[in-house]
Formats: sequence, structure tokens, C-alpha cells
Amino acid sequence: MRTLRLGLLGLGQVGGGLYQICSAKRDFFIEDIGVRFDFKKIAVKNKSKKRSFQVPKQLLTTDAMSVVRDPEVDVVVELIGGTREAYVLVTEALKHGKHVVTANKALLAEYGDEIFALANKMKRWVFFEASVGGGIPVIKALREGLVANRLDSIHAIINGTSNYILTQMTENGKDFKEALAEAQQKGYAEADPALDIEGVDAAHKLAILVRFGFGGRVKFSDISCEGITRISSEDIAFADEFGYRIKLLAIAKKFSDGIEARVQPTLLPAGHMLASVQGSFNAVMVHGDEVGDVLFYGRGAGSHPTASAVLSDLVDLAMRQGSHFDLGKVPMRAIQRPLKVKSISAILSRYYLRFHIVDRPGVLAKISEILGKHQISISDVIQKERSAGSVVPLILLTHDAAEKQVRTAIQTIDKLEIVRGKSQVLRIEGNS
Amino acid sequence: MRTLRLGLLGLGQVGGGLYQICSAKRDFFIEDIGVRFDFKKIAVKNKSKKRSFQVPKQLLTTDAMSVVRDPEVDVVVELIGGTREAYVLVTEALKHGKHVVTANKALLAEYGDEIFALANKMKRWVFFEASVGGGIPVIKALREGLVANRLDSIHAIINGTSNYILTQMTENGKDFKEALAEAQQKGYAEADPALDIEGVDAAHKLAILVRFGFGGRVKFSDISCEGITRISSEDIAFADEFGYRIKLLAIAKKFSDGIEARVQPTLLPAGHMLASVQGSFNAVMVHGDEVGDVLFYGRGAGSHPTASAVLSDLVDLAMRQGSHFDLGKVPMRAIQRPLKVKSISAILSRYYLRFHIVDRPGVLAKISEILGKHQISISDVIQKERSAGSVVPLILLTHDAAEKQVRTAIQTIDKLEIVRGKSQVLRIEGNS
Repeated sequence: MRTLRLGLLGLGQVGGGLYQICSAKRDFFIEDIGVRFDFKKIAVKNKSKKRSFQVPKQLLTTDAMSVVRDPEVDVVVELIGGTREAYVLVTEALKHGKHVVTANKALLAEYGDEIFALANKMKRWVFFEASVGGGIPVIKALREGLVANRLDSIHAIINGTSNYILTQMTENGKDFKEALAEAQQKGYAEADPALDIEGVDAAHKLAILVRFGFGGRVKFSDISCEGITRISSEDIAFADEFGYRIKLLAIAKKFSDGIEARVQPTLLPAGHMLASVQGSFNAVMVHGDEVGDVLFYGRGAGSHPTASAVLSDLVDLAMRQGSHFDLGKVPMRAIQRPLKVKSISAILSRYYLRFHIVDRPGVLAKISEILGKHQISISDVIQKERSAGSVVPLILLTHDAAEKQVRTAIQTIDKLEIVRGKSQVLRIEGNS
Repeated sequence: MRTLRLGLLGLGQVGGGLYQICSAKRDFFIEDIGVRFDFKKIAVKNKSKKRSFQVPKQLLTTDAMSVVRDPEVDVVVELIGGTREAYVLVTEALKHGKHVVTANKALLAEYGDEIFALANKMKRWVFFEASVGGGIPVIKALREGLVANRLDSIHAIINGTSNYILTQMTENGKDFKEALAEAQQKGYAEADPALDIEGVDAAHKLAILVRFGFGGRVKFSDISCEGITRISSEDIAFADEFGYRIKLLAIAKKFSDGIEARVQPTLLPAGHMLASVQGSFNAVMVHGDEVGDVLFYGRGAGSHPTASAVLSDLVDLAMRQGSHFDLGKVPMRAIQRPLKVKSISAILSRYYLRFHIVDRPGVLAKISEILGKHQISISDVIQKERSAGSVVPLILLTHDAAEKQVRTAIQTIDKLEIVRGKSQVLRIEGNS
């Protein structure tokens, strides 16, 4: 029987879920797993807040610093979120010889270098299964299950809010605003949804996947990031006509001259495994040199799923008690070796282009000519004629083209007198 | 740096892949992972067989027993397949204090009790990631990633041959024989494909998933097993009309009075994640009480994917060197506690029923009456009338019904003068 003495930071959604599972399954953990979790101290903002579950008053403190410095604590579980305060607490915990378990993707994306270097210096483990993909054991899979592989690509749906919104738009024909309001009502989106719908949350998680999937560090600010706010019902419907679904994807690819790392709304073939990921579910697909494509799917957020991931880290730590510290599966290269992120303008991709044009003879020829001048060749077209002179959508899919050329061509096209409003440019993944 | 001294049994598809990866990635394992694999002896059937890769002659032996008894070997990697010889070698290895890594599902399904009990007595680890789902790290996920969960269901596509055949029948309209021949030509099916297409291979793997997913042992012979040989193109087409795909599923469900464990061709809604698993790919979906649905997808067979899983076990063993033996994540309950498997006749399910009937007024009424007498109620019907008196298919989907009642009703219906040939009975999963 192994005992782990815990200092918990935060008793909200995930912290509360963790505490409740540990209470309800106390016997299960002791008898079936051989681990006893002993909560020593819990830092909260408000000790007298009403909670839906019982927790002994004497465990609670508003002094988080006293938790990370408590000599009776073996492991600090950081579940307060945010970056600045969490950074101070996590580093202080490491300096005091604690192991750390965290679900905080923003913290690891922005301060990962400092935290992992300090942990290594102090010979303490920092585990973070819950930081990407909620309850899906994807970090363990990358670090241990696929340890024999060099990964060359990652394609992930890792923001449940965006996927919920896009699913509602696709399956139920809602527009973006309606779908967002519904997500907020159901608790899938924050009152301020910017981090989710602008793609920042997904980019935080991608930074972590890249570090441990590709084995090297990226500057978070080098990850290019586009959200879903500019996706219209019209785009979803046209994508469908071509046999595609629009998903917010976090994408990373390894090339000999650097890596691509970007978050973007993307057209995926309807038969692609990631295209079947509905609602608030998450999925991470990676390609390894030995194993080929592997995909992990499950709930990317929520109290109990996320706590389930935190608990797997805690059991791992309990099992390592008594064995000497060994960075082993958190290789040094992921801390030390910088990865060069290629500029977004350097990528090659297939594109979905949507224009609103004045329906007049020769318009398609004019636009094709401009694309052709930029070495962009067209694979598919939808042009729905209504009546001459009216404004109608024109949709083109391209073969592989250079992002830079596409941007320049679109600028030229957008200036044409026959083109109305701003054109839509989306990338296509999943076949070529 | 940790060194693992290996005794390898078998240098075929998987053994050869393992040896090649270890040679090609020697520096990667040493520098990035911190593990050196040192092959001490390799047991083969024929030392002079031509191989597509280099292996030092002095490593090879035809005396497998000398490998498992070699005092210089830390870990025996069993990749010869089959049960009887493998059982003798694996138990001998354990008795000589070796840890064991195996990809052998038949061995673990049929002799798991004896092997795990012996391993526990000898305080040695038996790892078997490659035995289910090839390169997919699903065993690690069940044992470690989802350790905080009690699982209540497993739905898995774990026979690549069957899934390849069904995919070919569904996507390309081939009949069973054509698709099987193609699978054999492409190396996805053995010359004797019985183990795959009769569902036995999937049942072997299900026995392992149940043991470690539900935490208890099942008698392999208690798992009911139906293959795909009786699936016709006609059934696939009709299922499609109702919005379903037919997949060979391994299914286990936990109830208060026992578990269900069965392998069967199954109708799944087309939008279900498992319905998107195409070709020779595998996927395992489990439902945990904290995490909800989680799915793992990837290549279920093949030289390098399977070797990738074997290597993850070997790295795990290397990392445990020096720490004391602890059954920990392979709980005793999975060895000792027997799980009661409910008789297949006791299950409740929705059903797809297909009859060939003489198209005559009153036939549907007659059949519905018989079903009604057995408390089977119909949810959907397709009856395609051609011309009075000709033989036409009649397809019925039912609400939840008792297997026993369905079997009895079908026996009665099959005796009707208006029914021609044997009727088809398939179960439906994934919604209700």
C-alpha cells in the first residue's frame, strides 16, 4: 500500500470532482489499486462558499503558499488555472521538493521551459495528463505507449466548445451566434468565450502535444492561430456539398527544415475519423513512423473526466515512490532542443475559396486567370447561377498551393469590381 | 542508461520487425529514451532461412528452451504464437526469473489464469500491449490511463481481417468470397482464415480486455462467438438503407448480475465513431464511470505497428528496473475474482431480422403476429414488393427484445410455408 499526501490548489470544477472521486472511491483505490490519497491541505478562494459536497473545514485554507510549502505534502495538484499565480505556486512547490500534477495548459504552453527545467534540476516529476484532451490518456500514450516512434504529424480536435458550436451549425443548421449562445447556456462555453473560439486554448494544448510528441520546444507565440468566428453556415453547407466537414483543427507537421504548428478551421473529408467527432468530444490523431495513424477520442473537459486524468497521474506518482528520479520518459530533448516553427506563409495546402461575385459572363475566367498567375490550380468548382447581375457565391477548391501565393491572389481578387465583401479562405486536410 | 538483455522467441513478422527497429533506432533509444536493448539469443525454426535483414548468426538458435533458461537474459519476448509451445516456454521463462513480453492473445485468453498467477508468485511482470489492437496502446490505457474508472462496457473492432472484408463489401459492393480472396491476396488474411472470420481471434482479445477492463477473469469458452461468414451483400445494403453499418464487434457489458461477453456481426448507426473504422484498422471503445466514452484507434496488426507495442512494454520494463516488484496496476482481482458470464440467451438487444418471403397479402401480418406473441415489437420495416407470388426480402428492425424469445420466434417463422431459406438475425448496438 502506497500513500500519497496531497496539497490541492483549487476546489472548483476539476478540484471538486477530484476530491469527490477520492472520497467516493476510497476503498476502491486502496483495495484494487493499492494507493491511499491523503488530502493534507486545500487552497480555496473562499472558505465559506457553499459546495455540493462535504469537505472537512480544517483542510481548507485561503493561503495557497502555505500548501506548496507544507512539509507534509508530497504532491501539489494545481487546478486553479490562469498563468501568473499558478506559475509562482508551481515553481515554489518544486523548490520545496514536491512533485506537481497540473491540468493547466496555458501555464505549460507559456512557462513550460522554466517549469520543466526547474523540475529536472530539483529531480521532481511534473505530470499533466489532464492538460490536453481532458479524460483521454493521450499524454501517456505519446510518452510511453508510442515511445518507440518518431511522430511526423499531429491532427487534433482539442477545443470542445468550438467543436460543439461547429457540430450544431453542421447538424442542426444553426448560425454561429445561436450555436455559441447554446454552448454558453449548456456550460460548454465561458461567459467570455474568446480563448475557445479564437483558437488560443487549442494552441496552448498544441504547444504541449508538439513538445512531447515531436520532442522539442516551441515558442507559443510562433503557433499561428485562427478561430471559428468567421465560419458561416454557408461555408458549412458548401463544404458538405463537396463531401467535407469543417472542424477546428490543431495541426503540427514535421519536415526536415522545421515544423508547421497552427490552429485553424479546416475542411476534412466526411469519411475521416476526425470528421466523426461530434459535440464537445475531443480527439487527437498522430502519425508515428512505426505505428502509422493512431487516434485517441473522448471527453475533453468536464469535472469527472478531467479528474480521471489527474488521478492517473497521481497513481503513476504513487507507483514511482521509492524508485529513483529518472527523467526517462520526459526526455531532456523536449526541454532543451528548440524546434523551428515555419512561417505560416511558407506552408503548402489545398484550399477552399469562397467568393461572392456579381453573376456575369467571364467572372469565373477572370478569377481563374488570377489564380493561375499565382500557380494555383483548381480541382473543383460550385457556381450557382440565380439570375444575371445578382450576387451569388462561387466556391473553388484548389490543388496544393503555396499559402503566400494564395494570400496575394485573394488580395487581388478582392479588389475586383465584380467581387462583393470579403472572400473566405480555408485550408483542406486529410487527402490530396 | 538502462540495459535490457533480451531473449527473443520468433523472428517472423513481429519478431523481425522488432529486431529491425532496435537495430535502426539504436541511437534513438539510447540517447532519447535512455534504454539499450541487448539481444542475447533469438530462437528460430530455421537458422539458415533467408531474411530481408541482417542478424548475427551466433545469436540464432533452434533451441527455444535454451533462450528462456539463459542466465544472461532479463526479459523473454514471446512472438512465436500458438498456445501449447508458447505456454511451456513462457512458464519456463517465469520459473527462471525472467520477465515476459508477449503479443500472443490466444495464449493469454486460454492460459491467462495460470500465467498471471505464476508471474505473481515469481514476482515477475508479464506485459502484453501487442496482444490486443496491435500498435494501439490500449492495454496501458485501461491499466494506467483510466485507472480511476470502473468500466461498464467495451465495444471493439479488434479483427482487422474481418473489418477489411466488411469494408470491401460495404464500400465497393463486393460479396464475401471476393472480399476474402482480396484480403488473402493483400496479406490481411491467412491461408486458413477461420480464426479471423469465425470471430475466434476477436474473442481471444475480448477475453484479455474483459480481464483488465472489468477486473476479473472469464472462461474463454463462455464468450459467445459469431463470425461474419453469414453476412451477405444484401444485408449490408439493407442495413445501409436504415442508416447502419455492419461491423464485427467484440462486446462486453457489466451488469449487477453478471457480464455479457460476445463477438458478433452488429449493426451500428452510420454516425457512430466505430462505424467510421475502415479497412484493416482496429478500434476499442470503453465507457468508464468517471470519464464516459473513450476510444482508441489504430493499426491492429502488421510487423512494425505490433513491434511498436512490444517496444513500449520493453521500455516500461526497463524503467521499472531496480524498483521492487509490485503487482500494482495489474491488480490481483484480475487474476483471482471470477466474473460470471451471462448466457447469450439472457441478453436484451434490438434486432435486424431479414426474411425471404413469398410476396402475398397477409404475410407481414402473419410474421408480426408471431413476433408479437413473443413480446417482440417492430420499430422499422422495409418490404419491397416486386410482383405477387415472387420471393422478396422483408426486413424488420425491432425494439429491445429478449434473445431467447427472438430465437423461438424465428424458429416458428422459418417453418412457415411462405418463408423461403434461412432467416437472418443480427443485433443492433449504439442507440435505442
